[in-house]
Amino acid sequence: MYNLWYWPGIQGRGEFVRLPLEAAGIDYRDCARELGAEALVADMGTYDCRPPFAPPYLEMNGMALAQVAAILLFLGERHQLAPSNMGDRLWLHEVQLTVTDFVAEVHQVHHPVGTGRYYEDQKPEALRIAEEFREERMPKFLGWFENAAGCHPGDWLIDHHWTYADCSMFQLIEGLRYMFPRRMKTLEADIPALLRIHGLVAEIEGIRRYCASDRRLPFNTDGIFRHYPELDGE
Amino acid sequence: MYNLWYWPGIQGRGEFVRLPLEAAGIDYRDCARELGAEALVADMGTYDCRPPFAPPYLEMNGMALAQVAAILLFLGERHQLAPSNMGDRLWLHEVQLTVTDFVAEVHQVHHPVGTGRYYEDQKPEALRIAEEFREERMPKFLGWFENAAGCHPGDWLIDHHWTYADCSMFQLIEGLRYMFPRRMKTLEADIPALLRIHGLVAEIEGIRRYCASDRRLPFNTDGIFRHYPELDGE
Repeated sequence: MYNLWYWPGIQGRGEFVRLPLEAAGIDYRDCARELGAEALVADMGTYDCRPPFAPPYLEMNGMALAQVAAILLFLGERHQLAPSNMGDRLWLHEVQLTVTDFVAEVHQVHHPVGTGRYYEDQKPEALRIAEEFREERMPKFLGWFENAAGCHPGDWLIDHHWTYADCSMFQLIEGLRYMFPRRMKTLEADIPALLRIHGLVAEIEGIRRYCASDRRLPFNTDGIFRHYPELDGE
Repeated sequence: MYNLWYWPGIQGRGEFVRLPLEAAGIDYRDCARELGAEALVADMGTYDCRPPFAPPYLEMNGMALAQVAAILLFLGERHQLAPSNMGDRLWLHEVQLTVTDFVAEVHQVHHPVGTGRYYEDQKPEALRIAEEFREERMPKFLGWFENAAGCHPGDWLIDHHWTYADCSMFQLIEGLRYMFPRRMKTLEADIPALLRIHGLVAEIEGIRRYCASDRRLPFNTDGIFRHYPELDGE
């Protein structure tokens, strides 16, 4: 049983951890959903040594493990959600770290000039970077993930089983469809392998159950993927 | 012998890989420094499967391993540049991933509204985010790294030996002193443990030799850490 701590009310970066936990049926408690954001802030203050920089983090025996990619690396090894040989394990981690980079750029689209300020205070700047993001960064990242998904002979990113990174591909597609529905309509023609993985992950029993439950929050404009129609375009 | 590929002419993200290689005296070839940027672009095009998304990457037996934190995780395990038990190993990786996040924000300071555009085309926006970065983000990140450096009883971040993450702390201090000399003058009073590590890393024989050589490029305004006086402040 793991204690997962993440901001309640959004999918955010925490969702990249929730999905493989749910897919594998690993028991976890989504602490701040039960106890609220104040409990999360209070919990973060209890670690004198090795505190998390930011949620999400897993709490185990009084220790916190933060950073999505590190959490997934750990869960991957502990629960066989990743291949065991070093080359494949590092490759999968590399894919996940590229997700981290992509998510940081997604965040920059709606917060280009102030991570602590409201979107409404930086709309002209967001319009400017959104155009580059749609035209250049989305095709570049999605093209790279598509290659990762397509160059392997099996159905999944690697091996003949889903891994945590397959779950991340699912979440990227979900998030981008919400954030940029018009742009994704154009780009989806070029990412058949990613869409195949998206469909397969959606059919994993644990994911089906999760997405049908109220544990899966809807996307909203407080999370990482935010739908502001003015930032979208074909 | 490793083949390291990174843009010639800048320290950039590649420096986080070079430093532990140099500190440990591990043999590597800095390929694009010898062969030029065009050779790097050409090399990136040779991987049908599992290509690097971006430099830096290590090439080994025709395979590429990209992403600074993944490269360091690998080098840490292979060359004992990190502790061997899982808890400490993951903690160190978590520190390195927080460096990744910080470096992404450093980059956003001079490229807030266009990663592919020149700084000169986004100066007003850069001025705006630089203020928040100096006032809020620098103390938050440096405070967290200081806690990581200070809560351990020994001299280093962990263990009684330097690790790749100690080298990264060195590089952060070096980069920030170049980028924000006035701001760092104020903040350095609050980071004694980080400055201790910075000094100790500077004294590692391999680092001393490296920094005295022409392999250590000077910082410049093409890299990640860029000195634009107008973005600095006390």
